[in-house]
Amino acid sequence: MARLNLVAANPTKETKPKTPNVAVPPADGEPKDHFVNKNGLSYAGSHVIIDLWEASRLNERDHIEAALIDAVNAAGATLLHIHLHTFEEGGGISGVAVLAESHISVHTWPEKGFAAFDVFMCGDAEPRKAIGVFKKAFNPGRIVVGEHKRGMVDSIAR
Amino acid sequence: MARLNLVAANPTKETKPKTPNVAVPPADGEPKDHFVNKNGLSYAGSHVIIDLWEASRLNERDHIEAALIDAVNAAGATLLHIHLHTFEEGGGISGVAVLAESHISVHTWPEKGFAAFDVFMCGDAEPRKAIGVFKKAFNPGRIVVGEHKRGMVDSIAR
Repeated sequence: MARLNLVAANPTKETKPKTPNVAVPPADGEPKDHFVNKNGLSYAGSHVIIDLWEASRLNERDHIEAALIDAVNAAGATLLHIHLHTFEEGGGISGVAVLAESHISVHTWPEKGFAAFDVFMCGDAEPRKAIGVFKKAFNPGRIVVGEHKRGMVDSIAR
Repeated sequence: MARLNLVAANPTKETKPKTPNVAVPPADGEPKDHFVNKNGLSYAGSHVIIDLWEASRLNERDHIEAALIDAVNAAGATLLHIHLHTFEEGGGISGVAVLAESHISVHTWPEKGFAAFDVFMCGDAEPRKAIGVFKKAFNPGRIVVGEHKRGMVDSIAR
């Protein structure tokens, strides 16, 4: 996945970010999807699961879209496509950002004050940097974070 | 999230499924996003993490798109938006399907025979039914599955 010869970001008209502050770098032939090699482990990437409770602004589409883009930037990732869906009657937002390094998703339940994010990134991106962005954007009373190493091929510490 | 007063699926021209066999039901006012209540637990939904190894057809966009749609159907979920990105030079596919019940994502590394799926569904959908669909579609030598209960609000068994 994720050769650096990227196509330009192609958001639909509906979902075009108002602040398109994520740059798509020019192609340079270097892949961004190399498996991570760290502490004797080789794996595809880190999948960070972030649950926010007692959170605010969970029904504000533009705010959520801006937070997703800020998270992409904070993690040093590259946005390829973004789409948000607004459910009727204050029923929350679902959003996905497809990245050169994998994806970020969000689903919100405003009536519960609950938002479920996942941030999956391979290569040199830093998915955990998204946590601070979401904390600032949604002011949660409580955050629950988990992390998976995906695609681990050597789990024996050396 | 996910009131049933859905807007129609709105895939972009690029990503329009060739076999749009996922029906968007008419609005009936019933929410599909209710928290699951099972075995004394209340939670937002199940997030199933599926890693395939020694898998085939990981660079075939149309095949992957069809598999995502088949998985949506198998799980009894409702497709709202689907987008796949093809990386150059056989660099794999990234895809996301936004659902009334949350999402499915996939990222493939054909050169490693590795594919990383996640299937997050709330309400009455059955995300684990996607596993059989992916097994049939990509014929993996090995499958690693994990599951998170997201948004758990009562973890004490009664």
